[in-house]
Parts: sequence; structure tokens; C-alpha cells
Amino acid sequence: MKVRRFTMADVSFERSPGQDADVFAANLVDERHGGAITVGYGRYGPNQSLSETLAVDDVMIILEGRLSVSTNAGTVTAGPGELVYMPKGEAVTIRSHETGAVTAYVTYPHWREAHS
Amino acid sequence: MKVRRFTMADVSFERSPGQDADVFAANLVDERHGGAITVGYGRYGPNQSLSETLAVDDVMIILEGRLSVSTNAGTVTAGPGELVYMPKGEAVTIRSHETGAVTAYVTYPHWREAHS
Repeated sequence: MKVRRFTMADVSFERSPGQDADVFAANLVDERHGGAITVGYGRYGPNQSLSETLAVDDVMIILEGRLSVSTNAGTVTAGPGELVYMPKGEAVTIRSHETGAVTAYVTYPHWREAHS
Repeated sequence: MKVRRFTMADVSFERSPGQDADVFAANLVDERHGGAITVGYGRYGPNQSLSETLAVDDVMIILEGRLSVSTNAGTVTAGPGELVYMPKGEAVTIRSHETGAVTAYVTYPHWREAHS
């Protein structure tokens, strides 16, 4: 795979696996492309909540809206241009607020392989 | 390392290694933190140019301004909310435009170790 640019117009969102909230993910680069990391966009409806134990190291860059991430150590909230780093093994609850949110994410290794 | 939020206020920019353009990087998460990926913010002055052969897989998320990335296959240009994926081994020239640019980046493996 060569250098590529991606925009939100390139993506096809799918509901995040293993949950039924209005939380969607769209991989742009993943296990199909020969590299080690997955890159994509995430989209959260208003006031949604997703809980999971991370199977991969996961970084979210918030592009629109706000997200709060809670663990047993507390809660962090991030808005546009801010990042949340979530290491593998952490049990997190990710909550969107009234405006929903859009993120870019990068995981190592590939989250879809780690979930299957 | 636990879940952490980062903002631009958290960072200390350093000139990107091996070049003298006004291009700066600030790692937030790297080889010091026990994970496999490096996460940080990048800052490009107006009309700067940086050429390198990538020692790591590198994703840039453009937060402000615009960047163009050229390879022997052509040039892509990305603005706010857009991503550029640059696989390891590619020879790239990254150019900023009149407004400069701010990015978030994620690399696998750690770029500082790959450069040393």
C-alpha cells in the first residue's frame, strides 16, 4: 500500500461489534493492507455509551463533539483536537454527549483480528 | 500506562530530527510508556518542506491547516479532519502551505527508536 489520503467521504460506517449503541466504525487501513496498524473514523450518536475491555492499544483523536472515557481510575473528557490513549487490557466506558462525536482512531494490532 | 487524555497544552515541541525546517514534533506516548505505538502532535510553519524515507508506518491526522505529501507516485493534499497514511519504506516529501499545519500522528513501531 502506498501513501494515501482519506476523508470522511471515503468511509462506510458499520456498527461497532458486540454492542447495540449508535456507535459506528469505519476502517480505512487494516489487516487487508499489509501493515500492522488499523486506522479509521468513528461516529457516535448523541448520548451513547459503549463498554469494553480493550483488546488492542487504541488512540482516538476527537474531530467533532466530545467524548468521555471512564475507567476505575476516573473519567477523562476530550473535545476537538484532543487525544485519548487507551492501552490494551483497560476496561473502559466511552460516552458521547448531546452533540455526539466524530473521531479518528488508530489501533495496534488490528482490532478486528483481536475481536475475532 | 492508564487511559490518558492529551491536549496541545500538554506538549513540548522539538525540531524533527535530521532536518532544519520549521517542522516540530512532540511525542505524547512513546517507547518510554511500555506500548508499541508512538502518539504525538506535529507542527509545521508556513511553506516548510521535509523529505524522508519512512522508517515506520506513520499516520497523520490534520487538525489545522493543510499538508501535501509527495512520492514518486504523485501528491496528495489533506486538510482538517483528513488523514494521510504513509507506510514504512516510502520516500516522501511533506510540504505545508501558507497557513502552516498542526497534526496528530501515530507511528508503529516507535519512530525515535527507528531513527537511532
